[in-house]
Amino acid sequence: MFVERPIGVIDSGVGGLTVVSELIRQLPKEEIIYIGDTARCPYGPRPEMEVRKFTWEMIDYLLLHEIKMLVIACNTATAVVLEEAKEKLSIPVIGVIHPGTIAALKATKSDHVGVIGTEGTINSGAYYRELTMINTDVKVESLACPQLVPLVERGMFSGSEAEAIIKQSLEPILKTSIDSLILGCTHYPLLAPVIQKIAGESVEIICSGDETAREVSALLYHANLLYTGERPDPSHIFYSTGSQDMFQQIARDWLSIKDIDVKRINLQGQRISKKKFYN
Amino acid sequence: MFVERPIGVIDSGVGGLTVVSELIRQLPKEEIIYIGDTARCPYGPRPEMEVRKFTWEMIDYLLLHEIKMLVIACNTATAVVLEEAKEKLSIPVIGVIHPGTIAALKATKSDHVGVIGTEGTINSGAYYRELTMINTDVKVESLACPQLVPLVERGMFSGSEAEAIIKQSLEPILKTSIDSLILGCTHYPLLAPVIQKIAGESVEIICSGDETAREVSALLYHANLLYTGERPDPSHIFYSTGSQDMFQQIARDWLSIKDIDVKRINLQGQRISKKKFYN
Repeated sequence: MFVERPIGVIDSGVGGLTVVSELIRQLPKEEIIYIGDTARCPYGPRPEMEVRKFTWEMIDYLLLHEIKMLVIACNTATAVVLEEAKEKLSIPVIGVIHPGTIAALKATKSDHVGVIGTEGTINSGAYYRELTMINTDVKVESLACPQLVPLVERGMFSGSEAEAIIKQSLEPILKTSIDSLILGCTHYPLLAPVIQKIAGESVEIICSGDETAREVSALLYHANLLYTGERPDPSHIFYSTGSQDMFQQIARDWLSIKDIDVKRINLQGQRISKKKFYN
Repeated sequence: MFVERPIGVIDSGVGGLTVVSELIRQLPKEEIIYIGDTARCPYGPRPEMEVRKFTWEMIDYLLLHEIKMLVIACNTATAVVLEEAKEKLSIPVIGVIHPGTIAALKATKSDHVGVIGTEGTINSGAYYRELTMINTDVKVESLACPQLVPLVERGMFSGSEAEAIIKQSLEPILKTSIDSLILGCTHYPLLAPVIQKIAGESVEIICSGDETAREVSALLYHANLLYTGERPDPSHIFYSTGSQDMFQQIARDWLSIKDIDVKRINLQGQRISKKKFYN
C-alpha cells in the first residue's frame, strides 16, 4: 500500500526539522524520513548548478526508500529545483515557499504582506513572484535578516539580547503597515514568539513550517495517500551527511524526541538506476 | 487553456456564497460559476438518494461550462457525494469538511477541538470522523446549533438579541476546554465576529469558507491550474433554481458586489451526454 510509505523531507541542514516537527504534530500517524545535507550546508551562497546537483542526490536517495511524497524543506532548494521535481517525479512534491504565500493571502485584510528571510531567499524574489502571481494588487515588503539564523544556531530563542537584535532587524518592515508577516526561513519559527511580541497583535505571523505541514496534509488527502489505519508509534528516520551529534542535539531540542537515531550517509556519487519513480 | 476555465461552486442555497466571497478575495484573478439550488433548499432533511440526485444535476450543469475544479460548498452534499465525485470526475473536487478539519488540527495546541453545525451535519459525524482519522488522539466536542442559520437568514449578524441567542447556543461547548472551534456550516462565517467575542481570545475560530478557499488555491497550484496571467476584472456567473431577487440581495450584501447578475435555471431532467469530463 502506498499510504504506508514514509513522507520524504530534505533540507540543506537542520532548519527543515521545524517542518518535521509540525508534520509530526499535524499528522501524527505518518512516518517521516529526513535528510539534512549538513556537510555541505548552507546552500544559499552556492551556484545554482551545485544546489541542483546536491538536491537531486538527496531526492534520489529518498526515492530508493519509496517515499510517497517529497517535501523540499529548504528555501534555496525550493527556488532552484521545485518546478523540475514536480515535473519529473511521479509522487507529489511540495516546497516551503508556496504554502506561506497562500496563508498570507488568506490572512491579510489590507493586501499588504511582509516577508523576511535570508539574503539569498529575499534576493531571489520568489516570495514576491508567488504572491503577486496570485494577486496582482498585493503590496509586498521584503527584508533580508541575516542576523536571525546565527541567533537560532546559537540557541538564543529569547532573552533581552535576542530581542534587541530581532527588534533592530525587523524595524524597517514594521514601520510599514503590513498586517501579516511570512517567516520565509525554516529557522525562524523558533523565534516566532519573540517576533510576535515585537510585531504586536496587529500583525499575523506566518510560519512556513506550519503551513507546509498543512499543505502536505491537504495534498495527501486529495491524492488518497493519507495513512488512516492504526499506527500508535510511527518511527522516523533521520540522515545527516555531517555531524551526527550536533544534528541529534538539535533534533532532540527542536522536536522534543528523546531517542532520535541519526544515521550518517555519504551522498556523493549517489546514483539511482530504477526509473519507476520518474514520469 | 484549462487555466482560463472557471471554478465551479455548488450549494443547496445561498450559504456557499461565503465560500465564493473568500475565493474572490484570496484568488482575485479566478472566475467563478455558482449554482444555488434555492428552489429545493435545504438539503439537510432530505433522504440521501435525493441529495445525491440533486447534487449530480448541479455538477452535470457545471461540467457543461467546462469548469476546471469543483467545490461542493454544502456540508450535506459533501458528506453524501464528495468521495463519489472525486472518483468519477477528471477535475479536482473539494468539499467544505476537510479544509476545516486540517485547519483545526494545525490550530489546536491541546488536541481539543470543537465543531458546531446544523443537526444534519453534526449527526452525520463527518467532522469527527475526518479529525480522528488523521489524529486518533484528538478530543472532539460536537454541537448542533439549529438556531444559528435562522439568525443569518434574518440578517441578524450582530446586536444584543443575536448575541444572547449565540451565547446560549454555544454554552455547552464553551464550557469545555477546546482551543479551536470549527464553524461547520457555510452560514456561520457571517456570525464569526460575535462568536469570537463570546468564545474569547483563547479559542481560535475556524471558518470553513476561508479554509476551503485556501485549499482550492493549493490544489489549483499543484495541478498547474492557477490562472496567472492578467485578468483585471474577472466576471462571475450565478445561477439560482429559485428566487433571483432574494439571491441577488444576499449576494450583494455578502459579497459586496453591486451589479451581480443572477440567472434562473431549471435543473430537473438535466442530462449530460458527453463523457469527456468523467474518468
